[in-house]
Amino acid sequence: MDNKLLNRINCPQDLKKLSAEELELLAAELRQEVLTVVSENGGHLASNLGVVELTLALHSVYDSPADKIIWDVGHQCYIHKLLTGRRREFSTLRRFGGLSGFPKTAESPHDIAETGHSSTSISVAMGMAIARDLNRDNYSVVAVIGDGSLGGGMALEALNCVGSQKLDLTIILNDNEMSISRNVGGLSSYFSRVRTDPKYTRLSEDLKFLLQKIPAVGDSVYRAAERVKSSIKYLLVRGMLFEELGFTYLGPIDGHNIEALQKILRRAKSYRGPVLIHVVTKKGKGYGPAEAQPAKFHGVSAFDAKTGAVPLASRTYTDVFSDTICALAEKDPRIVAITAAMPEGTGLSKFASKYPGRFFDVGIAEQHAVTMAAGMARAGYRPVVAIYSTFLQRAYDQIVHDVCLANLPVVFAIDRAGIVGADGETHQGIFDIAMLRHIPNMTIMMPKDFTELRAMLDLCLKHKGPVALRYPRGSASSLPVALSGAPLAVGKGEVLRDGKDLAILGMGPTLVSALQAQAQLHSQGISAAVINLRFAKPLDQELIEKYARRCGRLITIEEHVLDGGLGSAVLEACSARGITPATKLLGIKDWFVPHGEPQQLRELCNLAAADIVAAARELMSRGKIHDRENKA
Amino acid sequence: MDNKLLNRINCPQDLKKLSAEELELLAAELRQEVLTVVSENGGHLASNLGVVELTLALHSVYDSPADKIIWDVGHQCYIHKLLTGRRREFSTLRRFGGLSGFPKTAESPHDIAETGHSSTSISVAMGMAIARDLNRDNYSVVAVIGDGSLGGGMALEALNCVGSQKLDLTIILNDNEMSISRNVGGLSSYFSRVRTDPKYTRLSEDLKFLLQKIPAVGDSVYRAAERVKSSIKYLLVRGMLFEELGFTYLGPIDGHNIEALQKILRRAKSYRGPVLIHVVTKKGKGYGPAEAQPAKFHGVSAFDAKTGAVPLASRTYTDVFSDTICALAEKDPRIVAITAAMPEGTGLSKFASKYPGRFFDVGIAEQHAVTMAAGMARAGYRPVVAIYSTFLQRAYDQIVHDVCLANLPVVFAIDRAGIVGADGETHQGIFDIAMLRHIPNMTIMMPKDFTELRAMLDLCLKHKGPVALRYPRGSASSLPVALSGAPLAVGKGEVLRDGKDLAILGMGPTLVSALQAQAQLHSQGISAAVINLRFAKPLDQELIEKYARRCGRLITIEEHVLDGGLGSAVLEACSARGITPATKLLGIKDWFVPHGEPQQLRELCNLAAADIVAAARELMSRGKIHDRENKA
Repeated sequence: MDNKLLNRINCPQDLKKLSAEELELLAAELRQEVLTVVSENGGHLASNLGVVELTLALHSVYDSPADKIIWDVGHQCYIHKLLTGRRREFSTLRRFGGLSGFPKTAESPHDIAETGHSSTSISVAMGMAIARDLNRDNYSVVAVIGDGSLGGGMALEALNCVGSQKLDLTIILNDNEMSISRNVGGLSSYFSRVRTDPKYTRLSEDLKFLLQKIPAVGDSVYRAAERVKSSIKYLLVRGMLFEELGFTYLGPIDGHNIEALQKILRRAKSYRGPVLIHVVTKKGKGYGPAEAQPAKFHGVSAFDAKTGAVPLASRTYTDVFSDTICALAEKDPRIVAITAAMPEGTGLSKFASKYPGRFFDVGIAEQHAVTMAAGMARAGYRPVVAIYSTFLQRAYDQIVHDVCLANLPVVFAIDRAGIVGADGETHQGIFDIAMLRHIPNMTIMMPKDFTELRAMLDLCLKHKGPVALRYPRGSASSLPVALSGAPLAVGKGEVLRDGKDLAILGMGPTLVSALQAQAQLHSQGISAAVINLRFAKPLDQELIEKYARRCGRLITIEEHVLDGGLGSAVLEACSARGITPATKLLGIKDWFVPHGEPQQLRELCNLAAADIVAAARELMSRGKIHDRENKA
Repeated sequence: MDNKLLNRINCPQDLKKLSAEELELLAAELRQEVLTVVSENGGHLASNLGVVELTLALHSVYDSPADKIIWDVGHQCYIHKLLTGRRREFSTLRRFGGLSGFPKTAESPHDIAETGHSSTSISVAMGMAIARDLNRDNYSVVAVIGDGSLGGGMALEALNCVGSQKLDLTIILNDNEMSISRNVGGLSSYFSRVRTDPKYTRLSEDLKFLLQKIPAVGDSVYRAAERVKSSIKYLLVRGMLFEELGFTYLGPIDGHNIEALQKILRRAKSYRGPVLIHVVTKKGKGYGPAEAQPAKFHGVSAFDAKTGAVPLASRTYTDVFSDTICALAEKDPRIVAITAAMPEGTGLSKFASKYPGRFFDVGIAEQHAVTMAAGMARAGYRPVVAIYSTFLQRAYDQIVHDVCLANLPVVFAIDRAGIVGADGETHQGIFDIAMLRHIPNMTIMMPKDFTELRAMLDLCLKHKGPVALRYPRGSASSLPVALSGAPLAVGKGEVLRDGKDLAILGMGPTLVSALQAQAQLHSQGISAAVINLRFAKPLDQELIEKYARRCGRLITIEEHVLDGGLGSAVLEACSARGITPATKLLGIKDWFVPHGEPQQLRELCNLAAADIVAAARELMSRGKIHDRENKA
C-alpha cells in the first residue's frame, strides 16, 4: 500500500508533478480504491469509474479550490474526494459521521455546492461566474454535467441563459449515453448520433473537411432539410445546438484519454465566453461487471468486488409496488405508468417489459412527467407516476397547477418516503407530506406493511382525484403488526391497539415502533392506544376526536419534518373540532438529516420506541385536568 | 350591434361558413370586443390582440372540442372564448361568478386544461396524444405556446420528449418576441434571428434555393463552424433546433394572415409525427397604445380605450419594495436582483435601470433564477429573487436543495402573496407559507404596512440565511395600524393591542381586520389582544405562550390555506410548549380560490373582521376551564 502513488496525492497541486504515465497508474489505483470501498459500503460505482480520467484531467489543469469545479448531481465525486485530501477518510464513505457520498462544502473547500438532485450545476456556475465578474475576480468556473442531467428542465433553462450572457464559464458535458437508466428524448438521440456517426469521428480527429455542393430544391425549407439530412446537415449539426445557444463547442473527445482531455481543457481555459466540451465516457469503465450492467451498478449496496455479485436483498416495498401495479394493470387497460429516469429504482422495469406500450420513461424530467400524466388523466387514463419522494419536489408546481387544480386522477407512487440512509441530506424523503398536504383535492396515504400497500394501490387507482401513496425504502419490519380488520377507505384510520390513557397516532412503518412502545408502556401500567391513521389527508377526524376525548393525550409519530407534517395535521383537526388534548409530536425537528444507517438516524431523530415511551411518560406527568374536561 | 358578424358565431363550426373577407371583418370585431371589455374589466390585452387571426385560423381548420387546442399559460384565450359560445357572458370576464380570464374546463368543453402558469401545454398535449393513440382515437392535439414560455424548463423537457416519441401532435410557436417582459436567453436570440434575417424570409416565401459550395478548412470543427457562420450555417439553422429534436418544422409565417395560417395548419394536420409551426405575431396588434407598449398592456386594470390612458394607481407594496431595494443597493454593492420575466410586475425595472450590471432577468425560468441566486450567494453576493408567490412554486425544489440546504443568504421577495383577485385560481398566492415553512433554515416574514416592509427588506439583507419576505398585491389599507414601537428582530412579534380574554394572531395586512374586530369586541365587553407575529418562521413562541397562558384562547388569521399555514405553526408551537389553549384558525379551507374582487373573495373565505368577531364569540362561549388551567 505504501508505494501507491495515491498516497502522495494530498491536494490537486500534487497532480501537476506527475508524468503522463504516472497519471495513468494513478487512474488504475483510483479505480481500485473506489471499487474496494464501494463494494464494502455501497454507493455510486459506475458513474465514478466513468470519470476517473476526467477528474484527473480537471484537477491537473484547473487550480481548485480557487477555480470552481461544480459536479452536477454529485454522485460522481468520489475521485474528486480522493484527490482533494480525503483519501484517509475515504473508507468512511456514506457511513454515519463519515464522508458524504455527495459534495459537501463543510467537508472541503474543494466542494463548491452541496448537491444530490440533478441539473443544478449550470445555474450555480452561472451565478458564481456573474459574481466573479462583478467582483473582478479571475477564476475559472466549470460545471460537469451528464447527458441525462442536461435533459432536466432547469439545466436547459440555464443553458439558454448562459449563452445569451456571454459569461466565461465551461460546461463539461459528460456524455455516457445513459443517465441513471437509459436516456430518453431528442437531446439524447442527438448525442448518440454525434457519438456514433463515423463522420463526426473523422471530424474530431481534426481532419480537413470540405463541404460538398448540395443541390436542394424545394418549395419549403422543411422539405429541403429532409433532403440534406444524410449529408451536410449531419455534418454541420455537430455542436450546432450549443452554438445556437451561444457556446463555443469543443469535442467530442475520448473521456478516458487524460492527455487529450488536458489539452482540450487548456484550450477551453483560454477562450472567452461560454464553452461546452463534449466528453464521451463509459460508465463503469475498467470494471467488467459495471461496464456490462451500469444501471445495476449505478447505486449499489455492498457487493463482491471480485465477481460483481450483489447479495439478494429481502423483499422491499418497491417490489410489492412493482408486482401490484402489474397485476392491477392486467385488469384495467387504462392504467399507465410513468417514471423519470428511474425504472429500476421504482420497480417499474417489470411493468415496462410487461406493458411496453403503457410505460413511459421521460428521462430526468419530473415536471414533464407529472403534467404529461395530467394530460393522460384528462383523456381517461389512470396514470401512476412513480418518483422518489425527494425528486418529486421538482414537480411541486405541476402537482398544484396541472393535477390538483383540475382534480385529476393521477396516482403519485412516492418511493423512498422517510429516512433513506446512506445517501443523506439530499435524498431523505422527509418533506413530502408537508409539501402535498396543503394542496386542495390531494389525498395522501402510507401503508404500514406490504398487505396494506397492495390494498392502497388498488384504492388509489379507483379514487377519483389525485392521490399520493408514499412508502419507504427497503423491506417491511419483521415485527408482526396486528391487523384490525378495518376495511381500507379514504380518510379512515384503524385501531391497532385500544387504550385509555393516551393514543399514539401514526401511519406507515413507524407504527412498528408505536406498537413496541405500547407494549413497554403496558408493562409500566400505562394503557396506550395505537392508531393507524392510514391517511395524512383527509384525516380521520372522527377517530382522532374519539381518542382525544377518551384519553386526553395524543402522541403523533412520523419519519418526516414536524413543521406542516402529520402531527401538525392532527393538531389542526383538534382545533377544528374544538378539542384541546395534551399533545406531543414526534418527528424530525427542522433539520436536514445527514447520511448514516437508517436505524442510527431514526435514533438520532428521536423516532425510536424509547422516544415514544418517554413522550408518553411526560404526557402522563402533566396532570389530569384535560381528562375531566375532554371526556365526553 | 345586431348586424355584427360576431353575433352569428355560436361555435367554431360557424366559422367554417365564412368567406376570407368575413373572417377579416370578424377579426376586427373581435379586437373591438376584447378592447371594450378589457378596458372595463382589466385583463390581458396585448397577448389577446396578438392571437386574433391565429385563433380564427385554428378554429376554422380544427374541429374543437373533438380536436384539442391547448393554450399555454392561457391568458391569450379571450378570442377562443368569444368563438366558443361565450360571447354573451364575455362582459363578465374576470368578475366574480363570471368568465375566468384563463381556460377552465368547467366553463366549456372547448377549454382543455385549466392553466395560468407557463410552459405546461406541450406536456399536457403529449399526455393527451399518447392517450389518444392508446385508445385508437383519431383527433388532433395542438399546443399553442409563446416563445417566452418555450424557454421554461418544463417546456424544454417536453419538447425533448415529444420528438423522440414520434407522436402526432402540433405545436404552434407563437413568436411575439416578448414574453411578459422582454425575452431572454439563447433560444430567444435564435428566434429573433430567424425572424429578421432576410434569408429566412426569402425561404419562407417558398423560393427555390441552392446551397453554395463552402470551402471550409480547419483543424477542428468548431473553427470550421465559425467560418461558415455567415453563410450556410445560417441558411440551414432555420428550424434546425426543432428538427434536431425530431420535429417537422413549418414557418416562420405571418401570424396575422388568416389564409396563410389556414393553409399551413391544414398542411400540419396531414403530417405524421410532431410538427412545429413557427408563427410570428405582434402583441397588441391593431391597438396603437398596446402595440407601442405591449408590456404595459400585458395585464392591465381598467383603462381609457380611446387614449390607452391607465388611471394612476395608488402606491403599492411593489412600489415600496422597488424604492427600498434601490436605496439599499446604493449602500451595499453586494446586493443583486433577479427576476423571471417580471421586471415590471415585481417593480425591479427601476433597479434594472439604476443598476443594470446587477440586475438579471432570466426569462420564464424560475428554477434557474433561484439556483443562479444560490451561486451568487455562495460567491459572497446578496441576491434578491423577486417572483410572485404563485410562480415561485415552480422553484420549490431549488429552494430546498440549492438554497436552504446550504443555508445561503438568498432573499425571496414574494410579491402577490395572499388573494390576488381577478386572475383567480392559478394566481392566488395562498400556498407559500405552507410550501416554505417546513424547509430547514428558512425564515418567513410578512409586513403589515409599508413602513414594516422597508424595515423587513433591510433586515432580510442583513440575515445570514434564506429569507422569504412575502407581501400582498396592491396598496396598504388606509386604516392606521397602531405601532407598538417594538424593534424588528428575527422571530419576534409585537403586541398591537393588549387584551386579556383572547389573542388574535396574524401578520401582514390581515391585521387590519384583526384591529377592526378588536374594536368591535371591545364594544361587546370582550378584551382581545392583537399580536403581529411578523414571522411565520421562526415563530415568537414566547409571545404566543404568554398570551395563551394569559387568555387561554387564540385566534389566528391568514390569507392562506389553513393546512400547514400560520395557524398550523401556532398550534405546533403550543404543542411544543405543552400548552393547550382553545384555538380557532381562520384561513382558506382547502380550496382553490376563484377570481373576483379581493374584498369579495376575502368575505367568501371568512376572512373579514366579522368572521374574527364570530370566532371570538364562539371561543368565549366554550367556558372557562382553560383559563384556570393555562394561566400561569
